[in-house]
Amino acid sequence: MIDLTALASRLPEGALISDADRMEKYRRDRANDPNAGVPLAVIRVESAQDVQTVVRFAAEHSLPIITRGAGSSLSGGSTAIDGCLVLSTERMTAIEVDPRTRTAVVQPGAMNADVKAAAAAHDLWYPPDPSSFEFCSIGGNLATNAGGLCCVKYGVTTDYVLGVDVVTADGELVELGGPRLKDVAGLPLTKLFVGSEGTLGIITRGVLRLIPAQRPAATLVATFAQLADACQTVQDITRGMRPSMLEFMDQVCINAVEDETAMELDRSAAAMLIIQSDEPGTHAGAEIDQIRIICEKNSATEVYATDDADEGEAFVQARRIAIPSVERKGAVLLEDVGVPIPQLGDLVLGIDAIARNRDVTVAVMAHAGDGNTHPLIVFDPADAEQLERAELAYGEIMDLAIELGGTITGEHGVGRLKQPWLKDYLSPQALALNQKIKDALDPQGILNPGVVFN
Amino acid sequence: MIDLTALASRLPEGALISDADRMEKYRRDRANDPNAGVPLAVIRVESAQDVQTVVRFAAEHSLPIITRGAGSSLSGGSTAIDGCLVLSTERMTAIEVDPRTRTAVVQPGAMNADVKAAAAAHDLWYPPDPSSFEFCSIGGNLATNAGGLCCVKYGVTTDYVLGVDVVTADGELVELGGPRLKDVAGLPLTKLFVGSEGTLGIITRGVLRLIPAQRPAATLVATFAQLADACQTVQDITRGMRPSMLEFMDQVCINAVEDETAMELDRSAAAMLIIQSDEPGTHAGAEIDQIRIICEKNSATEVYATDDADEGEAFVQARRIAIPSVERKGAVLLEDVGVPIPQLGDLVLGIDAIARNRDVTVAVMAHAGDGNTHPLIVFDPADAEQLERAELAYGEIMDLAIELGGTITGEHGVGRLKQPWLKDYLSPQALALNQKIKDALDPQGILNPGVVFN
Repeated sequence: MIDLTALASRLPEGALISDADRMEKYRRDRANDPNAGVPLAVIRVESAQDVQTVVRFAAEHSLPIITRGAGSSLSGGSTAIDGCLVLSTERMTAIEVDPRTRTAVVQPGAMNADVKAAAAAHDLWYPPDPSSFEFCSIGGNLATNAGGLCCVKYGVTTDYVLGVDVVTADGELVELGGPRLKDVAGLPLTKLFVGSEGTLGIITRGVLRLIPAQRPAATLVATFAQLADACQTVQDITRGMRPSMLEFMDQVCINAVEDETAMELDRSAAAMLIIQSDEPGTHAGAEIDQIRIICEKNSATEVYATDDADEGEAFVQARRIAIPSVERKGAVLLEDVGVPIPQLGDLVLGIDAIARNRDVTVAVMAHAGDGNTHPLIVFDPADAEQLERAELAYGEIMDLAIELGGTITGEHGVGRLKQPWLKDYLSPQALALNQKIKDALDPQGILNPGVVFN
Repeated sequence: MIDLTALASRLPEGALISDADRMEKYRRDRANDPNAGVPLAVIRVESAQDVQTVVRFAAEHSLPIITRGAGSSLSGGSTAIDGCLVLSTERMTAIEVDPRTRTAVVQPGAMNADVKAAAAAHDLWYPPDPSSFEFCSIGGNLATNAGGLCCVKYGVTTDYVLGVDVVTADGELVELGGPRLKDVAGLPLTKLFVGSEGTLGIITRGVLRLIPAQRPAATLVATFAQLADACQTVQDITRGMRPSMLEFMDQVCINAVEDETAMELDRSAAAMLIIQSDEPGTHAGAEIDQIRIICEKNSATEVYATDDADEGEAFVQARRIAIPSVERKGAVLLEDVGVPIPQLGDLVLGIDAIARNRDVTVAVMAHAGDGNTHPLIVFDPADAEQLERAELAYGEIMDLAIELGGTITGEHGVGRLKQPWLKDYLSPQALALNQKIKDALDPQGILNPGVVFN
């Protein structure tokens, strides 16, 4: 029997919870795993030292630690397992912006939106923008190397991380990097931890690079009668241009969003693209004009462009609420497969074929300019047979992505949900190399067991 | 006695050299280490399979392997040691550009300039631009996470690497990443190898991200009577703007370059800044106008701006030849220290004080917008006492950078030259973590021994 009072006594008052009712909300993340376990305790750490205390206790007793930010993981990255310690960063929310170095020093529990707001107060910008930015933590963003809508021009989370503090599995606190824009002294370990999904260490602080505030964007919305035409448009745009947003929604998404917003989207369209340019002054409009020509050349049924930032934002908002809108139609299995841009059409058409074949509804939205798609398989959780077909489709979509030279996860992470497919994607050599690093840094396997590694 | 004929027989005809005369040019890199060793053999590999053959042979016989691209390392990263195998990638120079995925697949021996040219043929751009881009290999760039002049706006090498193939110390060929713009499946191992200086594996292929061709730049050149004013100007610019180049040269550099070019640079100036904007259309000039105001506010003695791309390029060229121009003044010890931008002034003034105190000439050029400086300590190699003072100054400059919260190497790498200082920069915890990764991936220590790791 493990004596939690010894652990609690080394932590701030009230940091440790072991009451079943109060732990309930820490069991699941947004992947909503029905098999989520029951933790031994939940610890709401307040400092890196608290994290060290928890990790040392866990190491001593061989207890698994599941690190949890805002619990917004879509791949089960923070789903509890039986007998684990859930390490919650919710109380570590400090954000300090230094406009002179153009960096933000953040604690992991801060929300992405709050980091953005703190930067904006200095006319600066932290670009990475997962659709969930209002309710996902920056620690989770770092752990998964999160993406978002602006990545097509501005890159992903790792591109903005100059340093991290991590507590490793032996309880050491290691400071890596810092507010230096170039630094190649030693192995690039900051980059190793960003995207390691909490399997190598627990991030207790990040030093983020900020850039000047984004300019107001011009927006174009185009609809297509054929999926293939929309995908060809994406290919034609990305070949020579860098719009600041290039998003895709298929008919199921359009209708789900229209059900919520009644903004008069064309329910009959097979696909819609939402595209922005944030080039300066009249150059935004000029880039949008070029994009309009490409859309028209590819048989767009309707093209609407606006320089009005608020009007443009309404369309972006429509895209952002696509996932919640589809979620209202039933339970969903959310995919995150990505392919090289030339294969985007084959992927989208292939997903359509899988949906028909398995007789399930699949809504596809995509960060199209990155080739990163989010097919949502909608099913009735009460219908076991339908659930089975949905799960088959889920696997088949990953198989298809791999066949097309794509990845099983573009930005959500492997988590617990996609772990079984990792071996189909990575070569045995790459898997072995992953395992070597894991074994070297977490030989007991106490950090997020079941996530990424089996 | 090691039987090299067995190795040679498994390699292409003529790949292996063991003749002392022919090996001579493979002993040193641009760091010109007087203690460079004599290799057992030099192997000019032609394929990843050749690399595997060499690594397996080396592992079997516990032979050190020094990997070498173009030999342009400034930190001794490819300096031979006695009895090593030099693995030269000079014959692996293939470059394939795919404009549809906007990527280049490159072999490590290709020159950075050739990668740029291949991209340019498709109206695309590979941004990273070390000053040595015409004579440095892309494999070396990847190994060191090389920087350059455009990084202030466009980032460093790692930001453009989507995948690498590496041969690890056990002779396995591992494919990591690929032409997928977002991919978070598994640990971010591509990022671990980029910047690992050949100590974890040998890169045999890179998949590089390309972006649309750069727009023509507007250029501003400003001179200052006081070093501090030039550095304050850098701080004021970077606080809210993103010029596409922001370079610094001190008086010694200006004079060395003027000796070579007679382009009428102001020899009396304490410092000169060379700044570019590649914003579209008239916005480049507008950004340059804003920068002019900042320069004038900071007491610039002269400010000259031009929209003419060729004229601007002449100034950039002046900056690029600064290192060779200073090298004509004597032997040099080349530094690569970087600090957070607010500390740039303290660093530059501190270097000046060190130079006076040690009575040595130090020329300072800097990628100022990144806080990354290249002090060049000039000395007469025939004067042992002067060499000693130069070496003391070399260490003192690193000590100063560390004291100011900076790094001992911003973009050249630790190599062999800076290895003794790494322990002064990284914490014991960070060093231990570096060593854990090294031991896990190269337990025999055969890959670039003496580089980064002691």
